[in-house]
Amino acid sequence: MPVNLSAPVAGELLPVAGVELGIAAAGIKRVNRKDLLVIRLAAGATVAGVFTSNRFCAAPVVVAREHLAANQGIRALVVNTGNANAGTGEPGMQNARATCAEAARLLGCAPEQVLPFSTGVIMEPLPLDRIVAGLPQAVANLGSDNWFDAAHAIMTTDIVAKAVSKQVQINGQTVTVTGISKGSGMIHPNMATMLGYIATDAAIAQPLLQQMVKQAADASFNCITVDGDTSTNDALMLLATGASGVQVGEAERAAMQTAIDAVAISLAQAIVRDGEGATKFITIRVEGGKDTAECRQIGYAIAHSPLVKTAFFASDPNLGRILAAIGYAGVADLDVAKLRLYLDEVLVAEHGGRAASYREEDGQRVMRQSDIGIRVVLGRGAASATLWTCDFSYDYVKINASYRS
Amino acid sequence: MPVNLSAPVAGELLPVAGVELGIAAAGIKRVNRKDLLVIRLAAGATVAGVFTSNRFCAAPVVVAREHLAANQGIRALVVNTGNANAGTGEPGMQNARATCAEAARLLGCAPEQVLPFSTGVIMEPLPLDRIVAGLPQAVANLGSDNWFDAAHAIMTTDIVAKAVSKQVQINGQTVTVTGISKGSGMIHPNMATMLGYIATDAAIAQPLLQQMVKQAADASFNCITVDGDTSTNDALMLLATGASGVQVGEAERAAMQTAIDAVAISLAQAIVRDGEGATKFITIRVEGGKDTAECRQIGYAIAHSPLVKTAFFASDPNLGRILAAIGYAGVADLDVAKLRLYLDEVLVAEHGGRAASYREEDGQRVMRQSDIGIRVVLGRGAASATLWTCDFSYDYVKINASYRS
Repeated sequence: MPVNLSAPVAGELLPVAGVELGIAAAGIKRVNRKDLLVIRLAAGATVAGVFTSNRFCAAPVVVAREHLAANQGIRALVVNTGNANAGTGEPGMQNARATCAEAARLLGCAPEQVLPFSTGVIMEPLPLDRIVAGLPQAVANLGSDNWFDAAHAIMTTDIVAKAVSKQVQINGQTVTVTGISKGSGMIHPNMATMLGYIATDAAIAQPLLQQMVKQAADASFNCITVDGDTSTNDALMLLATGASGVQVGEAERAAMQTAIDAVAISLAQAIVRDGEGATKFITIRVEGGKDTAECRQIGYAIAHSPLVKTAFFASDPNLGRILAAIGYAGVADLDVAKLRLYLDEVLVAEHGGRAASYREEDGQRVMRQSDIGIRVVLGRGAASATLWTCDFSYDYVKINASYRS
Repeated sequence: MPVNLSAPVAGELLPVAGVELGIAAAGIKRVNRKDLLVIRLAAGATVAGVFTSNRFCAAPVVVAREHLAANQGIRALVVNTGNANAGTGEPGMQNARATCAEAARLLGCAPEQVLPFSTGVIMEPLPLDRIVAGLPQAVANLGSDNWFDAAHAIMTTDIVAKAVSKQVQINGQTVTVTGISKGSGMIHPNMATMLGYIATDAAIAQPLLQQMVKQAADASFNCITVDGDTSTNDALMLLATGASGVQVGEAERAAMQTAIDAVAISLAQAIVRDGEGATKFITIRVEGGKDTAECRQIGYAIAHSPLVKTAFFASDPNLGRILAAIGYAGVADLDVAKLRLYLDEVLVAEHGGRAASYREEDGQRVMRQSDIGIRVVLGRGAASATLWTCDFSYDYVKINASYRS
């Protein structure tokens, strides 16, 4: 079950002027399940995004990049679950383009003004006919109050929908930021997460918007991992409609970025809290590194270790496994004698071994919590990095041994 | 349960002249369990080894390297299970040295002529008193026929003991090679495996022996992974007593290396077949790469993917997960359109997607086997690499969630 993660409340999600959302149950993989989302943007909105670095990136990722580059103004996004349209070769490309063409026809815009997104099983043909048949229903119920349903429509193995809203004052005016995301397994984003959409009614020029979405991704989705598997379909999109009339330039950037980052971090952490089979939410902070890269390298070695993850599942303070992971992380000149390891505030190891002050019952107490902090102090420099991950349980195996059935 | 892995038969393990083995139940972690092994070598034997690259390498690894470098001739090896003596700081170093000193006293040699090895839980103090108390028993039963018991004495979570013998004709004379290994979890050797000892009665000068053990490790233990966790205690030792009177120089090297590699590969594969919770043994062959490094990189991405491993556990041909792993392996200029993926002889994917000839029932048939081959043809060059791994089951989580209790 999700770890300390509350479901979003429909009434607490704030509409973003200039954004409408429509949902359909298109029967893509299962019947009677919301699995198709159309997001319509007002004319003049700017859109930026970051995408997976997986070489087997999905057809919709390729097409979305092309359409963004075409720079004709994006008017709609189409998202389906139940099928990733990845590892589908040239037919997959044709299906992604056909999805855009049909949505464009219904919405009265050009196909290049539509961005496609898919998530679900890899290497299965996309059922284009069902998507085409479902699109009119989604377009028919387009509305600005549908963020709650939209968050549900993009779920796959997610147990809890992920959605959050924030408001920020910019030049005395209120700007709204609302975002949704999905993801639970195949989570080790490398540019962005499985799928995330954050919209604001601020007006932000595209080049700045692209910088801001990259920065938000680096502060959020690029700091999480569930299983170390980087998806073929990762995408984080930032949509700015300008409908509030508030212009964001360099002077307003910091305040706006803070609000966007907060939404992105909340959505990213929700993915980990809802990680497949997760029973613990673990924050890994690595400090005192020579640079951020080595801090992240060590953090991910800990976060990906099946031995560390199963020990957390068992609440077993078998903390030597963390030392082993630090040791094989690939930092060749690491001096383990200078390193300190903490579990929350409990000093576990120093001088290359167990701390004299460490008592097993202190480690045990922290391990039993559902939210746990690991802190590694390297004693090599001033850089640091924070990652979020979860434990590894019977249910992870169960979910992934039976995902397709 | 181990995958198509037979337990060694006591009578089929061949003594190696010049090698005696003694075993004790020292109560290091549990009572009445063989957990201490002494290997005594005849004077004049040469010894070479490769060790873990983990920066948190165990105290006995540090001491073994020192004693090999001291070059006084190695006369004994002492191996304990139940405690890794890793992450134990300066006290751990003192305990490893004290173990050597006590064994040296009992055997009448110098402490620098003894190599220590430990395996078991990390970051717990080594119970030196129990080892010292157990050593006389091990020394008292030294004998050349004890390979079977020795293989059992070094087990931790292993279900089946690992031991094998080969004979090879060199210059018309028979040379014997017998080896043992242990390991089941924390298996992603990077120099060698958890613990492996291979002995021969050939005479091989130390510099050549060092080249041969490195080559054997690269062909065997450096090609396996269970969970991607590189141990703090990995060591593969090659012992050459010369008692057969057969000299191995450059002219005899190829024949000798072939025999040693065969023993090493057998022992390494046994570790994967006995991988924690394993139900499938998977051979991953990556061909057509630009160099071996990128073939191994892609092979390990597949071998480490929890999603791939759980799909194999479930016999679920959800083979898009393999494509995703290939895609995120980090080969930046990989052209996925040129790649072919086979499951045994079944062509699964080509031209960036599912092969037209692929039928789910063919994939299903292969996935149900207990020995499965994955073959990836990259279409980039002539290099190749073969790795061996296993699947990921409920029992892996169970074993590692309860290892210490």
